[in-house]
Amino acid sequence: MEAVIWKRPCVLALRSCGPFATCGSRGTFGFRNGGRALHRTFILRVINSTGSGAVVARPSSARKYKRSEGVDRKLAALRQLFHKPGLQMDAYIIPSQDPHQSEFIAECFMRRAFISGFTGSAGTAVVTKDKASLWTDGRYFLQAENQLGPDWTLMRAGTPGVPTVSEWLTDVLSPGSKVGIDPFLFSSDAAEELKHTLSTKDHKLIYVYDGNLVDEIWKEDRPKPPAAPVRVHDIKYAGLDVSSKISSLRQNLMEAGATSIVISMLDEIAWLLNLRGNDVAHSPVAYAYLIVELDSTTLFIDPSKITPEVIVHLRNSNVTVKPYESLLLEVERLANCGAKLWLDTSCTNVAIVDAFHSACNKYFENLPKRSKQKSIKERNKLLNAKSIDTEMEGPLAIHKASPVAIAKAIKNGAELDGMRQAHLRDAAALAEFWTWLETKVVQDKTTFTEVEVADKLLEFRSKQAGFLDTSFDTISGSGANGAIIHYRAEPDTCDIVDDKKLYLLDSGGQYVDGTTDVTRTVHLGEPSSREKECFTRVLQGHIALDQAIFPENTPGFVLDVLARSSLWKIGLDYRHGTGHGVGASLNVHEGPQGISYRYENMTGLQGGMIVSNEPGYYEDRSFGIRIENLVIVRDMETPNRFGGNSYLGFEKLTFVPIQSKLLDLSLMSPAEIEWLNNYHSEVWEKVSPLIQGDVHEWLWKNTRPVPVHSTA
Amino acid sequence: MEAVIWKRPCVLALRSCGPFATCGSRGTFGFRNGGRALHRTFILRVINSTGSGAVVARPSSARKYKRSEGVDRKLAALRQLFHKPGLQMDAYIIPSQDPHQSEFIAECFMRRAFISGFTGSAGTAVVTKDKASLWTDGRYFLQAENQLGPDWTLMRAGTPGVPTVSEWLTDVLSPGSKVGIDPFLFSSDAAEELKHTLSTKDHKLIYVYDGNLVDEIWKEDRPKPPAAPVRVHDIKYAGLDVSSKISSLRQNLMEAGATSIVISMLDEIAWLLNLRGNDVAHSPVAYAYLIVELDSTTLFIDPSKITPEVIVHLRNSNVTVKPYESLLLEVERLANCGAKLWLDTSCTNVAIVDAFHSACNKYFENLPKRSKQKSIKERNKLLNAKSIDTEMEGPLAIHKASPVAIAKAIKNGAELDGMRQAHLRDAAALAEFWTWLETKVVQDKTTFTEVEVADKLLEFRSKQAGFLDTSFDTISGSGANGAIIHYRAEPDTCDIVDDKKLYLLDSGGQYVDGTTDVTRTVHLGEPSSREKECFTRVLQGHIALDQAIFPENTPGFVLDVLARSSLWKIGLDYRHGTGHGVGASLNVHEGPQGISYRYENMTGLQGGMIVSNEPGYYEDRSFGIRIENLVIVRDMETPNRFGGNSYLGFEKLTFVPIQSKLLDLSLMSPAEIEWLNNYHSEVWEKVSPLIQGDVHEWLWKNTRPVPVHSTA
Repeated sequence: MEAVIWKRPCVLALRSCGPFATCGSRGTFGFRNGGRALHRTFILRVINSTGSGAVVARPSSARKYKRSEGVDRKLAALRQLFHKPGLQMDAYIIPSQDPHQSEFIAECFMRRAFISGFTGSAGTAVVTKDKASLWTDGRYFLQAENQLGPDWTLMRAGTPGVPTVSEWLTDVLSPGSKVGIDPFLFSSDAAEELKHTLSTKDHKLIYVYDGNLVDEIWKEDRPKPPAAPVRVHDIKYAGLDVSSKISSLRQNLMEAGATSIVISMLDEIAWLLNLRGNDVAHSPVAYAYLIVELDSTTLFIDPSKITPEVIVHLRNSNVTVKPYESLLLEVERLANCGAKLWLDTSCTNVAIVDAFHSACNKYFENLPKRSKQKSIKERNKLLNAKSIDTEMEGPLAIHKASPVAIAKAIKNGAELDGMRQAHLRDAAALAEFWTWLETKVVQDKTTFTEVEVADKLLEFRSKQAGFLDTSFDTISGSGANGAIIHYRAEPDTCDIVDDKKLYLLDSGGQYVDGTTDVTRTVHLGEPSSREKECFTRVLQGHIALDQAIFPENTPGFVLDVLARSSLWKIGLDYRHGTGHGVGASLNVHEGPQGISYRYENMTGLQGGMIVSNEPGYYEDRSFGIRIENLVIVRDMETPNRFGGNSYLGFEKLTFVPIQSKLLDLSLMSPAEIEWLNNYHSEVWEKVSPLIQGDVHEWLWKNTRPVPVHSTA
Repeated sequence: MEAVIWKRPCVLALRSCGPFATCGSRGTFGFRNGGRALHRTFILRVINSTGSGAVVARPSSARKYKRSEGVDRKLAALRQLFHKPGLQMDAYIIPSQDPHQSEFIAECFMRRAFISGFTGSAGTAVVTKDKASLWTDGRYFLQAENQLGPDWTLMRAGTPGVPTVSEWLTDVLSPGSKVGIDPFLFSSDAAEELKHTLSTKDHKLIYVYDGNLVDEIWKEDRPKPPAAPVRVHDIKYAGLDVSSKISSLRQNLMEAGATSIVISMLDEIAWLLNLRGNDVAHSPVAYAYLIVELDSTTLFIDPSKITPEVIVHLRNSNVTVKPYESLLLEVERLANCGAKLWLDTSCTNVAIVDAFHSACNKYFENLPKRSKQKSIKERNKLLNAKSIDTEMEGPLAIHKASPVAIAKAIKNGAELDGMRQAHLRDAAALAEFWTWLETKVVQDKTTFTEVEVADKLLEFRSKQAGFLDTSFDTISGSGANGAIIHYRAEPDTCDIVDDKKLYLLDSGGQYVDGTTDVTRTVHLGEPSSREKECFTRVLQGHIALDQAIFPENTPGFVLDVLARSSLWKIGLDYRHGTGHGVGASLNVHEGPQGISYRYENMTGLQGGMIVSNEPGYYEDRSFGIRIENLVIVRDMETPNRFGGNSYLGFEKLTFVPIQSKLLDLSLMSPAEIEWLNNYHSEVWEKVSPLIQGDVHEWLWKNTRPVPVHSTA
């Protein structure tokens, strides 16, 4: 799945964020997520307004869009709530987030879509006493125009002259106004940034704890929170038991002088507890919070999701279960007990952070005067100290990036094996799919819509052992649609796949043992020389990055140029990053590592990380090309180790043929052709045992070596 | 000349600085220069203790080192000055700087060498009432041990456990001590940083304006300040007249809301006024300051340097001349007139910055109370404003990087032509030199010392039209000495150049029309396969960078990986940057651009800039390899211009054969071999008309194409 768009507007609703999103997008919406969430998103699942909480893989054709009705009544109802006792608000912001800054969210959290009628994945709604505005980016201008009612103003984010959310608010509100948010839907960092911006015009940001206002209007129509059962992620795939993982985490806590930590990222909880859920599409996670203390672990989750098997599993790891809703109480209890609480404010919502800070303040207020002064002095000292004295009296908030992100990013042997196995079965499904498509289109002269093709792919994947879900919404783009980087084919409007155009297919699967994400671009007829030149240069970039060897801890952005150089030679480029992290049977986007032209993400690449390698080229209104494999970062055992460094390289996970027809071999060096031939020989060797008949034949034909010519 | 050492300690005395020097070197000496000076240095000219102010190119063999005598008496005399009326100091820091943060300094400024006896190029001396310590880095440990008297302690910077200057000061001084510096020798940023660090232990940094204390001891033995005449840099080389340059600068001032600027970098003054000087070795500059106001320009310089020709030249450009020493008075006058003064605090010494700030404070103190409050309020508002209202009452300091640096970095057509011409004559001199060396060593079986070879090279260069000086001290390193990146051969101790070892020669010339800097590594006998493998990989990196095409404004660090990839493939690397900026008949190191693995320098590459391309590999105690060309950044007229960008690439300036004997052709791709053959064909075409006889023959032999093999 393509990494991140270049200079695209950064929105809360996009959950693109941090390093990837800062450049050229600062403040488009007036505020943005903290750096953390960056890895997690930017394509939201489109709303399925009829679905229940339980998520299964759905064919794309099952999705429907309806123009919302009664928006005006919703707005009026919402505005009435501005005057609830104790509130007196002048505006309310409705972002697209869930309380965990997730990439894919449950339907009960799709409040922005409910209130505005706009169902696109990215957007922020702001309602004042007399105005209602919705910000979204270029992908959704048309859809938003169609879906927004007459009382709404569409704010075309990223267009010259369009204010950001906070610019707009400071403009339309009279000084000293009150702007409300649901504190569960904003990361602490995002809320702080918003608060700061609003304060420049003496506006006040208020946290509405007492229920989300949209929910009060949505009432019984609001989808129930997902209640799908949680399952144990088998130790043969997880590789490390829960006790060992928690023990390492406690080591991190102690080194930082912390006594406890709140984990709120759903994939971190799933990874740490070797659990998988089914609460949202594409990501096998469950809504929950986790508190790990030095001597106890508490999972906050709807108890109805916990099966007997999971009960035993948790008990074996000394994990206590408490209701999801009781988290804040527990956070307050931690403050009262003098906990030194580790909080990752880039992804933890401000409701939690604020609850702890308030409880800390109360703690110190209630102290006898003398010991109070001592404590405050000690506390201030600590804030500047390198190591924290856990003997110090009283609670303390330690704001620091969660240590689970990096622990999760560095896969162990079992996780890597699971990823390898899942990729082979995924490759078999793709071989079957491509055989089917080529036969139908080339031999039978049939055409299909982009949605039909994506549905057929899902059918093939579904037959593979251990298949659970797609890992994101398939991007099925024929011809000019391939040039829309975040293209989403819709049944009513999509193009056909035929033998006249390039066809870009970016898709992935969630398997019990691994997560896949692969893009191939093919032409089922005769590609133009322009298409071949561009495809060849994209492949050259892919090959250059794949072959890179580099010192351990090299930040990903150092390698990004390798994937672009071949395009740059003729003045071409692509407006997205080159690689994102991928979870092991977890989120298809994860951090902290990445490979991008943006220089802010200094995370060094380490052995065991998984990243995508996906350069592309997009010719507006014409065609799109992307070639994506997933790769494992691993030690390369170089003959030298200058500076005592390990030197790392990539091991391929994805084994799907690259269409040789699209190559201009005269542009390629012998070494590049050798890479291609070796890759195809490996594809044949690994995938042919899993397939039969005409698929076998197709794979044979599509993995034959191309001739190495004598000059480059 | 090689760019910058990796993780080498950053010292005031090194004048390495800023982006290049921060990583791994933070605080080794307790303080460092501002970001600006980075481009300017790191190899200081070694002291010639007998020389006069006038500088001519000197053969290396003429340099002498003598163990200083009477150091103790000097120390005692210096300590007595601690108690001068009004001073009462506890310590005095003697850095290696001149008042302009120059790379190469005049002898009268070599105070650290005088007081300590240590003549190495990098070092900082600190004298307290009972201690005297000298910090230097690994290159100079042996030399410092030999040269420092018994009262001095050598601080081996960068060695574990060795404190930085400020760590040491805060340790040995009792709290509340006074540390003195000569404010002319510290950039404002460096002084502020030092002041801040000292203040953590309640020490006070005091600026000793009343003459440098070392000079009071040096007395009449102190070399006179250089008084070499200044000359006009012909418009045919400069390309742009002074009035046009100053007019552009005034445009910059007005855009920033400034009414005046102090320029203190000597190369900026030389460039802006189309003047060249002869005050220091290697850099054709003269000691001066320049103040440009919206309606006047004043050059502060020793009037004896101004020839009648220069007087006319300056008069034509409306430049007034005032004595060098009168600068501070003029700065104070500017404050009194309410000037908005642009100061680049990273390179302007704190004496100047402080003088202006003090005068500003006085200005506001002397205002009637009411108008004072108004002014202060307006001033504070301005500090946060984006544009400055020049109508605001009262003076203002605008701290900002000098606009002259980037203007100077982007060469005009005449400057580029001059550089091209100078490089051809330089190439002819090098062809003569290499012919001589090869004949002597290979045919006549003669050997020479490294110093003798460097002297001979100077002899050949000196014969070329327009030759003025070497552009830095030649690095002539045979065998293991080649692995010492900043090696400096000394007559008494240096190795011989023969046919048994690799020989690295990094040298450059100052010509009337351009500045050169070239490194070649050769073997005059039979290279080992290890040497060939390493040389080939260094060349591959050089070729990859040379061939890069990239969008305009790409920061240099993005390209750095291209020069390293081939080495990384076998686990090798080099501990210096890949490229530095070069002046046009000016300093061999200039900013702001660079190509380095360090990510802090975000300066985008632009057409007209000149950079070096000099990857290397150094095998400790064995051999060193570096291949360096200078290149011009230029538009490449690519068939596409994605995103409306220009795409840039490099045009080679250096035309000196690369020894094919050192290549392992089996490692090279056909494209790489083609690059080499094309380069050599260009060398032959451009340089052969300038040479004759056996040199002609040598060049013919050394530019023959190597065979392109069929696989890579």
